[in-house]
Amino acid sequence: MIATTPKPPYYAVIFTSIRTEEEMGYRELLDKMVELAQHQKGFLGMESAKNEIGITVSYWDSLETIKNWKMNVDHIEAREKGRSTWYKKIMVRISKVERDYGFDNLSLKK
Amino acid sequence: MIATTPKPPYYAVIFTSIRTEEEMGYRELLDKMVELAQHQKGFLGMESAKNEIGITVSYWDSLETIKNWKMNVDHIEAREKGRSTWYKKIMVRISKVERDYGFDNLSLKK
Repeated sequence: MIATTPKPPYYAVIFTSIRTEEEMGYRELLDKMVELAQHQKGFLGMESAKNEIGITVSYWDSLETIKNWKMNVDHIEAREKGRSTWYKKIMVRISKVERDYGFDNLSLKK
Repeated sequence: MIATTPKPPYYAVIFTSIRTEEEMGYRELLDKMVELAQHQKGFLGMESAKNEIGITVSYWDSLETIKNWKMNVDHIEAREKGRSTWYKKIMVRISKVERDYGFDNLSLKK
């Protein structure tokens, strides 16, 4: 799904990753984190795709709500597990969306 | 591949898309556009993943070089073809990366 986001400015957290071979517990915890993120204050949407690398972009209303999510204890625990077990390499980029545009079935969105 | 980018600030263009069923000419033109983008002034790197949706993030040194790429005639032509033929829905978000961090094989990158 392409996320439906409000008029800019808002924030995008671009999470790029390369996984290990380890599957044990990965999907369950990932689903739990997605569910949990969606219930955070300031969460605007999320987009995800994966083949050789995984890219997940989550959208937020402010740097403060991104920080709150980063400080969430369950999220901290999941990240530690991710680092020790599930990911070979990751990159996180915190960015401010200044402009957006697109189209939906040939009708201009904005 | 996870892109190797310089110290922020730099810019990220987040391109999210849902494809049509049409394959004719798509891969060739996409490869040509990736090749062409990589030779643009100010291009810093690119990451791409696809399953239900496609996400391509390209990184640039400034809004000006993003604009130059947007105005490239071959790119304009490819976008028109994309809109008429290859994509059902797209969203483009221009964002400024303010902070980044990650790890590579369990050694902290920065």
